[in-house]
Amino acid sequence: MRAAIYCGPRCIEVGDRPDPVVTAPTDAVVRVVLACVCGSDLWYFRGESPHALGSIGHEFVGVVEQVGPEVRGVAEGDLVIAPFLYSDGACPHCRAGWPSSCVAGGAFGTGEGIDGGQGEAVRVPFADSTLVRVPGSGHSDETMRSLLTLSDVMCTGHHAAVRAGVGPGSVVTVVGDGAVGLSAVLASARLGAGRIIALSRHPARQELARVFGATDILAERGDAATAAVLEMTDGVGVDAALECVGTAQAMATALAVARPGSTVGFVGVPHGVELPIDRMFPSNIGVRGGVAPARTYIPVLLDDVLEGRIHPGHVFDFETDLDGIAEAYAAMDERRAIKSLVRVGTV
Amino acid sequence: MRAAIYCGPRCIEVGDRPDPVVTAPTDAVVRVVLACVCGSDLWYFRGESPHALGSIGHEFVGVVEQVGPEVRGVAEGDLVIAPFLYSDGACPHCRAGWPSSCVAGGAFGTGEGIDGGQGEAVRVPFADSTLVRVPGSGHSDETMRSLLTLSDVMCTGHHAAVRAGVGPGSVVTVVGDGAVGLSAVLASARLGAGRIIALSRHPARQELARVFGATDILAERGDAATAAVLEMTDGVGVDAALECVGTAQAMATALAVARPGSTVGFVGVPHGVELPIDRMFPSNIGVRGGVAPARTYIPVLLDDVLEGRIHPGHVFDFETDLDGIAEAYAAMDERRAIKSLVRVGTV
Repeated sequence: MRAAIYCGPRCIEVGDRPDPVVTAPTDAVVRVVLACVCGSDLWYFRGESPHALGSIGHEFVGVVEQVGPEVRGVAEGDLVIAPFLYSDGACPHCRAGWPSSCVAGGAFGTGEGIDGGQGEAVRVPFADSTLVRVPGSGHSDETMRSLLTLSDVMCTGHHAAVRAGVGPGSVVTVVGDGAVGLSAVLASARLGAGRIIALSRHPARQELARVFGATDILAERGDAATAAVLEMTDGVGVDAALECVGTAQAMATALAVARPGSTVGFVGVPHGVELPIDRMFPSNIGVRGGVAPARTYIPVLLDDVLEGRIHPGHVFDFETDLDGIAEAYAAMDERRAIKSLVRVGTV
Repeated sequence: MRAAIYCGPRCIEVGDRPDPVVTAPTDAVVRVVLACVCGSDLWYFRGESPHALGSIGHEFVGVVEQVGPEVRGVAEGDLVIAPFLYSDGACPHCRAGWPSSCVAGGAFGTGEGIDGGQGEAVRVPFADSTLVRVPGSGHSDETMRSLLTLSDVMCTGHHAAVRAGVGPGSVVTVVGDGAVGLSAVLASARLGAGRIIALSRHPARQELARVFGATDILAERGDAATAAVLEMTDGVGVDAALECVGTAQAMATALAVARPGSTVGFVGVPHGVELPIDRMFPSNIGVRGGVAPARTYIPVLLDDVLEGRIHPGHVFDFETDLDGIAEAYAAMDERRAIKSLVRVGTV
């Protein structure tokens, strides 16, 4: 099969990989329909995080092509969403709702082992507990794009909101206007937030933040952003601060705008972030977050997508096919695109 | 009046202070009946934290002696519990349940300003919102000792449990066998924890931990404690880890035994603690804690004390009068006492 191959910093090529086959009785092979590029893919693209050379991408939706003899929950021909991590569904962490810590689990597209989603097909371990079957058929392209976001980005934004405790009436600040931050805006609106302050200085992202439910947009950054949020909240701070970048400045801003007793929900992969416990202690500001347990959230969010109540697929503002994969990365790297969709196959 | 005076590291004397009087219309003057020494008092006693010379102590119960003209909720002769912080009850943080962040609030016994509880009387600002009236009369000495713990230590242990999300059936580890850690054991049992693993190598504290509801006692520390807890939980870790010391090792142990997706509740005043976000991120282990909002918790816990369902006063295993205050500190400093009670007056 053909697949995107990571060949080093700023080098993404399309090459040949062996066709995936069922090797364990709980496997399925999924033919990829839509894939995309994750903000976290940019870390290795830019050479800022190590990554093995090889198959890449961890977000995809596709059609089941083959299943192992022990697979019961999905069948050939099913449209499925793959969370970015596979998980056995049986270990104590899976049973507790944290498949992201599955003792037998792992990630798609790490360059070695399991293939990535940026290719024509993927062998999916533990198919029953990993894949989520999408009911119905003939879904519109808009719906398909939104389904794809459940693979990672929408679940990750949702995770930030859930871990920060966003609920009805909450006053929220979202730090980060990438696809995850925008998804966190949408997730906060879905959870009933009363006011959503999005930090963004990029016109297209500001506009999408508004579409997703942001009530206020601030172009300030750093201390100026903190001052502006505090002014908007009469000096109190926000009920929930969502850190969706992973840099020291983003976390510092999230902690600074969080009101006493609140929790920063963080989903940006930390790069140089420090947590100032001496300042968190007197104000009772907590931090919770990490790798989103996407498999837990997909069923929670799926109906809202299928019934058109949320349209997270709007984060895709660039699209190409597998041959254009290098450009999909470049567009995001250069911030020409919020998030790049890759059309790999058809339903 | 006579009061304990901090005169520098390892120097506590009894001296004279001006009799407190009502200065604001919302003040009350409280005649102290019982006071005690806090583990956090040891930081300045040992010279490890700065503290102004002067009046000390922030935990007390007493009888209202005089009230300002705007005080409505307490009256002369009322038995009252003072949380260790005063608060106006009206600011946004107080209204949100975080009087510990009151914009007009402060602490008792900082050496300057408001007197401390380790003295014969205290002027209490914002008496209505600060003090909690104890219903009934003729309370036993045992009840009085337990009421005193609501001033700080029991509320602080409760805070660790609440912030870690302890609930029915939870598997809990409490790091720290001081009065706060032991109170956290009791608080966890009260909240319905199914298994409470207390870390202690001190026989008297181990025994009290059992009385308070610990199901397991581990004498190990550091990596050995972590290994033991993980072995006891089949490698999973605990649902809630309660950090009740404030040292780097205690926090490291709490984070290491916390299961993926859980939250460390921390109430030990941090001294050299670092939070390893790079390890918290993949496992979704959060941290929440800080200065306990005691005023919020006293009404929650009061009935259980008055009706004898909990006996947090058992943390007091040393007692003296005001003249013995120096010995009250020394006994705790030398770990001869878990917590020292100081009998100042009578009801």
